[in-house]
Amino acid sequence: MQLIQHIINGQHTSGVSSQTIAVYNPALGQQSAEVVTAVVEDVNTAVAAAKAAFPAWSKMPSSKRANIMFNMRTLLVARQDEVAETISKEHGKTHDDALGEVTRALEVIEFACGITDKLKGNFSRDVAVGIDVTDERQALGVVAGITPFNFPAMVPLWMIPMALACGNTFILKPSERDPSSANLIHQLFAEAGLPPGVLNIVHGDKVAVDALLDHSDVKAISFVGSTPIAEYIYQRGSASGKRVQALGGAKNHMVIMPDADLDQAADALMGAGFGSAGERCMAISVAVPIGQETADKLVAKLIPRVEALKVGPYNQTGNEMGPVISADAQKRIKGLIDQGEAEGASVLVDGRSLSVAGCEAGFWVGGTLLDNVTKDMSVYQQEIFGPVLSILRANTYAEATDLINAHEYGNGTSIFTRDGDAARDFAANIEVGMVGINVPIPVPVAYHSFGGWKRSIFGAHGIYGPEAVHFYTKLKTVTSRWPTGIRAGAEFTFPTMS
Amino acid sequence: MQLIQHIINGQHTSGVSSQTIAVYNPALGQQSAEVVTAVVEDVNTAVAAAKAAFPAWSKMPSSKRANIMFNMRTLLVARQDEVAETISKEHGKTHDDALGEVTRALEVIEFACGITDKLKGNFSRDVAVGIDVTDERQALGVVAGITPFNFPAMVPLWMIPMALACGNTFILKPSERDPSSANLIHQLFAEAGLPPGVLNIVHGDKVAVDALLDHSDVKAISFVGSTPIAEYIYQRGSASGKRVQALGGAKNHMVIMPDADLDQAADALMGAGFGSAGERCMAISVAVPIGQETADKLVAKLIPRVEALKVGPYNQTGNEMGPVISADAQKRIKGLIDQGEAEGASVLVDGRSLSVAGCEAGFWVGGTLLDNVTKDMSVYQQEIFGPVLSILRANTYAEATDLINAHEYGNGTSIFTRDGDAARDFAANIEVGMVGINVPIPVPVAYHSFGGWKRSIFGAHGIYGPEAVHFYTKLKTVTSRWPTGIRAGAEFTFPTMS
Amino acid sequence: MQLIQHIINGQHTSGVSSQTIAVYNPALGQQSAEVVTAVVEDVNTAVAAAKAAFPAWSKMPSSKRANIMFNMRTLLVARQDEVAETISKEHGKTHDDALGEVTRALEVIEFACGITDKLKGNFSRDVAVGIDVTDERQALGVVAGITPFNFPAMVPLWMIPMALACGNTFILKPSERDPSSANLIHQLFAEAGLPPGVLNIVHGDKVAVDALLDHSDVKAISFVGSTPIAEYIYQRGSASGKRVQALGGAKNHMVIMPDADLDQAADALMGAGFGSAGERCMAISVAVPIGQETADKLVAKLIPRVEALKVGPYNQTGNEMGPVISADAQKRIKGLIDQGEAEGASVLVDGRSLSVAGCEAGFWVGGTLLDNVTKDMSVYQQEIFGPVLSILRANTYAEATDLINAHEYGNGTSIFTRDGDAARDFAANIEVGMVGINVPIPVPVAYHSFGGWKRSIFGAHGIYGPEAVHFYTKLKTVTSRWPTGIRAGAEFTFPTMS
Amino acid sequence: MQLIQHIINGQHTSGVSSQTIAVYNPALGQQSAEVVTAVVEDVNTAVAAAKAAFPAWSKMPSSKRANIMFNMRTLLVARQDEVAETISKEHGKTHDDALGEVTRALEVIEFACGITDKLKGNFSRDVAVGIDVTDERQALGVVAGITPFNFPAMVPLWMIPMALACGNTFILKPSERDPSSANLIHQLFAEAGLPPGVLNIVHGDKVAVDALLDHSDVKAISFVGSTPIAEYIYQRGSASGKRVQALGGAKNHMVIMPDADLDQAADALMGAGFGSAGERCMAISVAVPIGQETADKLVAKLIPRVEALKVGPYNQTGNEMGPVISADAQKRIKGLIDQGEAEGASVLVDGRSLSVAGCEAGFWVGGTLLDNVTKDMSVYQQEIFGPVLSILRANTYAEATDLINAHEYGNGTSIFTRDGDAARDFAANIEVGMVGINVPIPVPVAYHSFGGWKRSIFGAHGIYGPEAVHFYTKLKTVTSRWPTGIRAGAEFTFPTMS
Repeated sequence: MQLIQHIINGQHTSGVSSQTIAVYNPALGQQSAEVVTAVVEDVNTAVAAAKAAFPAWSKMPSSKRANIMFNMRTLLVARQDEVAETISKEHGKTHDDALGEVTRALEVIEFACGITDKLKGNFSRDVAVGIDVTDERQALGVVAGITPFNFPAMVPLWMIPMALACGNTFILKPSERDPSSANLIHQLFAEAGLPPGVLNIVHGDKVAVDALLDHSDVKAISFVGSTPIAEYIYQRGSASGKRVQALGGAKNHMVIMPDADLDQAADALMGAGFGSAGERCMAISVAVPIGQETADKLVAKLIPRVEALKVGPYNQTGNEMGPVISADAQKRIKGLIDQGEAEGASVLVDGRSLSVAGCEAGFWVGGTLLDNVTKDMSVYQQEIFGPVLSILRANTYAEATDLINAHEYGNGTSIFTRDGDAARDFAANIEVGMVGINVPIPVPVAYHSFGGWKRSIFGAHGIYGPEAVHFYTKLKTVTSRWPTGIRAGAEFTFPTMS
Repeated sequence: MQLIQHIINGQHTSGVSSQTIAVYNPALGQQSAEVVTAVVEDVNTAVAAAKAAFPAWSKMPSSKRANIMFNMRTLLVARQDEVAETISKEHGKTHDDALGEVTRALEVIEFACGITDKLKGNFSRDVAVGIDVTDERQALGVVAGITPFNFPAMVPLWMIPMALACGNTFILKPSERDPSSANLIHQLFAEAGLPPGVLNIVHGDKVAVDALLDHSDVKAISFVGSTPIAEYIYQRGSASGKRVQALGGAKNHMVIMPDADLDQAADALMGAGFGSAGERCMAISVAVPIGQETADKLVAKLIPRVEALKVGPYNQTGNEMGPVISADAQKRIKGLIDQGEAEGASVLVDGRSLSVAGCEAGFWVGGTLLDNVTKDMSVYQQEIFGPVLSILRANTYAEATDLINAHEYGNGTSIFTRDGDAARDFAANIEVGMVGINVPIPVPVAYHSFGGWKRSIFGAHGIYGPEAVHFYTKLKTVTSRWPTGIRAGAEFTFPTMS
Repeated sequence: MQLIQHIINGQHTSGVSSQTIAVYNPALGQQSAEVVTAVVEDVNTAVAAAKAAFPAWSKMPSSKRANIMFNMRTLLVARQDEVAETISKEHGKTHDDALGEVTRALEVIEFACGITDKLKGNFSRDVAVGIDVTDERQALGVVAGITPFNFPAMVPLWMIPMALACGNTFILKPSERDPSSANLIHQLFAEAGLPPGVLNIVHGDKVAVDALLDHSDVKAISFVGSTPIAEYIYQRGSASGKRVQALGGAKNHMVIMPDADLDQAADALMGAGFGSAGERCMAISVAVPIGQETADKLVAKLIPRVEALKVGPYNQTGNEMGPVISADAQKRIKGLIDQGEAEGASVLVDGRSLSVAGCEAGFWVGGTLLDNVTKDMSVYQQEIFGPVLSILRANTYAEATDLINAHEYGNGTSIFTRDGDAARDFAANIEVGMVGINVPIPVPVAYHSFGGWKRSIFGAHGIYGPEAVHFYTKLKTVTSRWPTGIRAGAEFTFPTMS
Repeated sequence: MQLIQHIINGQHTSGVSSQTIAVYNPALGQQSAEVVTAVVEDVNTAVAAAKAAFPAWSKMPSSKRANIMFNMRTLLVARQDEVAETISKEHGKTHDDALGEVTRALEVIEFACGITDKLKGNFSRDVAVGIDVTDERQALGVVAGITPFNFPAMVPLWMIPMALACGNTFILKPSERDPSSANLIHQLFAEAGLPPGVLNIVHGDKVAVDALLDHSDVKAISFVGSTPIAEYIYQRGSASGKRVQALGGAKNHMVIMPDADLDQAADALMGAGFGSAGERCMAISVAVPIGQETADKLVAKLIPRVEALKVGPYNQTGNEMGPVISADAQKRIKGLIDQGEAEGASVLVDGRSLSVAGCEAGFWVGGTLLDNVTKDMSVYQQEIFGPVLSILRANTYAEATDLINAHEYGNGTSIFTRDGDAARDFAANIEVGMVGINVPIPVPVAYHSFGGWKRSIFGAHGIYGPEAVHFYTKLKTVTSRWPTGIRAGAEFTFPTMS
């Protein structure tokens, strides 16, 4: 059985604990590896390594750090298939989907290649006569990232390139469900020339997380995961004086206006609802058609599409969706569908009994379409994080936006319409951080920043892009003036020589 | 006895509690007024008022909000003497010092006048073919400020103009020691055209503070005060999911290099050490001359200057320093001097027994100069917040910077030198947020931002300037594309009409 | 007869020439004043005054210059009626229209109030180890503006506040048709505290213009006027090595899509076509309805509106439009209508014979509506700069945009539609600098910048806003490092003293 | 004999003329190749190719254009030796110097990799109720670069990456003295994936230059060369309505203060004065020591260093300097030294008679040191562009800065001092665009911009960096609002269904 180890100061190590966690191939439902679990002492070792690496790394000219990012980009382009394979093997998503994940990660690295420009401070000459002000942003020190299973390469690479480019050293605690991608990322960075100790990987569970949250030498925490954990991370990390950005759950609605292109909308819902088995914080889980006529037409277009979804293991070509991450997840998702049905939702397409030939033990849930969902149902209120799309029929645009604004989450949302007025009103007034106009999954490109609102985020910063530069640096402002020195002295000393 | 009331939704009110706190004229040591104290219900009322005012205020074009800031600037320029008088009467600082406070506040208002430009988001055309991205920053909602006694007008006006200009509504909990300035600020804003409920003043103590920290409708907290309270504010505010910036205490060192202009340095130390009786978070409380020769010369220049300090009430012209804020503060400061003396510091000038004729009951502490202070002494470790300047003699530049970097605080610091290399090294490497080069009190101008490092700040944002725009707004990112609609339709529909 | 003089170095003067030009009240067709005309020597005197004022003005902290802009804003708000009256008396536009002109000018002053922030340079720490880079933008020196009759206050104030705030000194050569506004602007600036010589007004004609273009101490020229003159200004100013921005003529099309709100479109066309008697470079002079049905409906809505236009002198309330600027202009415009009619345009509403009771000698042209205009007609190809709206019927959206893209001018344009796709395509692809979506006159707000494309502009900079900061300043970049000096020296000198 | 051809639309071609120009190996004084020369028809062909390539290239998402820059970076890193060899063979500079040239070029490409971020426009929500403004910068079209012999790879790559990344297509007219580098750059770009026609190389002389300057489809010209030609380019290019940036000659002074580290200063002068045989627009050609004592010490340190200069062909290791570019240049430089000597300069080290064994026919001029140069001498007033360093002795700092400020050129300058006051005064007040503080050749890094002042530049833009983004794009501003459409319609249509 393969043993996935920590990587601290450039060295693989099992740390001081002999405890491990099983890692599965979810398409087969079989254990594929085991991963070590850190105790406090392991975290302390990693933090010490990162702290030791900080002075040299942070004082290195940012252009030199950028060079390593350029190298990393070249490596990641060349080896994207290898990374995608590593992702899919433990996560289950299709190869194309995994390649898409790598592409998004790549774009963050590309943005980090431009760090010299983004780290520019400001300069004001003569704020008063003879007094100048310069400001600059300096690295924080050791920072840490705690990342979820659903994007085992992308989410770490939302954080690491920006944190490192800004001059910080980093400790990643990846998901214990699919930890191999993190180690591969480390390997690529090492090949790109990253010095030992600048990036460290610590595997494990809540013990490791808490040790990071409490450690006084960890200056900032970036987290992506579910809302209850995000809130916990924000509270505990803040309690120890850190800056924290903790991105949580979502319930993303797509509003379909009567004038929308319904084929486009239906296609968009397929990708946004069932891609990656719905295990995306930007997945659309609720479609809100406006008016019964729109709803009926939309449903008619969705049913055959959901029924035709190709579900299977990532290494069979043609599949559009893989398994969910674990037996627990499978059980939880099926249970939520049961509950929705019990509460009155119409199960138009039912994925609960899906079995994939040759992979019968895999953690499968088929694409599921629920109609007549209402805002009181648990399938509406909770984030399902599975391949379940709910239709919640609204009569008016205002009813739809009230619904969205009332939801506890505010991560992403989308409207499909041709109408400039509807789109503008939606963009301006909806209480959600990431908004799509005829774009189902409005994940901002890497030179903008990712971040939701309300209980989808705790903290004041989005992730990657310009927000990351602010999050991973602190402001220093220098005000200066000079007493008359050698300049006047020179004039005084030598006049008889003229 | 004058009763200072809350101002909620534009109305003065005593709220539901009959409890009050005494307000003093510190130069006379006499009570001058009493201020009401809020209970939770009062805070709830204020938050409700601010919440009700939010939709109209935040949707108002930022240029309209800017117009009110322009009006406020005109009013504050015209009535600066009145504001200064209000400050001094309760705080004790000299009129000129109070006018300086008003000027700094004015500059923040001037920066807020430019909010239209600072709120610009970004636009990216064709992030993929036909897909555009727009980002914008929207107001948070109700935000609150909790401010200290030492700058009763300036610190509130570090927060309010930026918070309001960004579209938020505001609740100010000013210091209960000198609460009148807050109410005067409200009055001026009202005259400038600010709608009721947009700015609310709630007086009181920890009860009010906790109610603000815990209220789910308060989205952000700005705090300036001492470090223990700042830490508490950060923890409790974060625990309820808010974004928090909490600025704490300081121990600001000035390094005097052998090549410094020592007359300039000595003059600078007088203003920075004793101005406003040392009750400034940017006061210099430790002078670190490099080398015994430098130290001896500096001390020789300081002694007569400290002895000559003119101390007295604000309404007598010619005074350079007023009383400290309270009898408690007076007692605490004298106690720290006692302790320093006991621990071995040389009391070169002793302000403990100062009495001011005609104001014998005032809270006086005279300018005090301590030499041979060491890093183990309590006068070095603690923030005295009084007119006490300590000399800590260092032998080398490195010894001085090690000292500064090891201190728990990192608010401000300064170096006096003619040497570009020393200045550059100090600016680049010192672990302090605000650095002066031959500038004793390097408070950044209002178009930069104020903020320390280490335990002088909790949170990721400086106060006022560009940092304030980020703190008081949240990011929304819109990704859009359009289905072919009327444009192609127009082409299709009408060709036969030609 | 009132004599309007130059203002040089704060003094009114008639200069060395005794020649004057008559100034008219166009509503009465009577001379109201005469204005002096500069010869080369007068321009030289003005440039010398501006050059002498430059060192002190440019070295003044930008915050001090901003203070004068704040004062100017207060004065202009207080005295907007006086300025509007001064405009209308010589230009003829209605009082409300003149007030609108003042408001736009005011907004540029407000942007200039924020100059401290806009003049921030950039700072890069450690571009290589120990090497830092700072850049800053410094004022150019003496710069000049040459402005047209149609906005005698606004266009000068598009230039002056930004040029001055950036630290330049300025020479304005206003239109000789309505020169009084320029002198009033000078008076207000003087009251606001502007030192003598910083702003100078030189009246006259081509002699003065050429003298400015050729003077080696004038570092930049801003011009707004017709295209042939703009081209001449650009060539001659560039030939003497200056930076030049020269904004020329326009032929602004409004595309009306079949889905547009036609009442809104018709109302918009009334304001955009006939406001200020069409004498605006952003006036809409061509309406392009898509499809005959749209065209017929639009025309039906326009005819009664144009017929109902209230035309008369500015000092009679209720008028919507005043006279054109001169007898020559009146003759030229009527001649173009004649020509259009001769070439086949349908004159649906004919303003050629308008007479205003009591003002029979005024330079009147009534609102004129031409239909069936084609791209070969002179009324289409030329800028009429009068109250003449042409309807050019297009069959398709593509036909309309081809038309616009083929026109020599590219100043402004507009589309009226509800359709997001049409609007997006138009905004992205139309070859015009300022684009309106359901906005007929898309003059950018003062915190963006104004500027057309193609032969509507010569030079690389828009006017006012961020573009102005770049245009009116030059880049200085400082790269620095330091030899080990007193810092290391300090360490070396004193160790035995420890 | 190798024939160096144009590259138009991806194809090598000799064009329509049979005329060629000889290309030399300057170390051997022998012809190494011949280069074709374009006539007007060839330029027209190239412009047509670039114009045809423009629509697809400019509409391609900027991230796709950036990908090609990333590829180009990888290729240039891998093949830097090949490029350096190509440079040196025709230019004569040492291999290390040529590698340094490549590195600087590489940094511009790296900045261009971040174009997505730099092309972001601005977005203002609700400039009035319901009205939004977006601005963006769009490519100009076909732009051209005309580049000098002294940096045959770097200067073209100061222009091309930024122009292309912004969406323009490009025509390069490289120096006819060392044209091979341009063709190699094209080859690398083609390998990086640049589509045909996006970059075109046209070889030749003034005929080609004039054809580019006059062509109405060329929208902008970037030029680097001597001042008379720069002025000509600016005038002729502007006369045809283009935007032009034309960078000219220089006479760069280094001020050596009495407190400078004189060994550092002397070493810096060696590199800055004699590197690349002084054929750099940023070379230091005048050293200005302050005070006779400083001057004497400096001269004493310089003489042995200049005498020890290793001069020889680029392909012999250990050489520090190569030949000058041509027999004409050699003659001109020697003539200027003759003239300086005749006018009274002391020739402390004389390079006029240098002969290099085995390369006797090469275009050699040895390192030459002139003392007691005065401002009236031709060696001071003219740009020598050869390995000649003049000492001009000044008595005071003020005398030195007056000298610099009075010179017609203002490209670069440097001060060597330890004194913060002298450095600050110099940086703030010297009338030069690029300033070094203890940095002899202050060429700004690629994320800042390059540009001088006075007659060292014609036009308003520096080259590369942020300035390039402004130069190579034009501003479009969109103001939008929406009529109530489907949104309200949706509400109206369906209420009975609720």
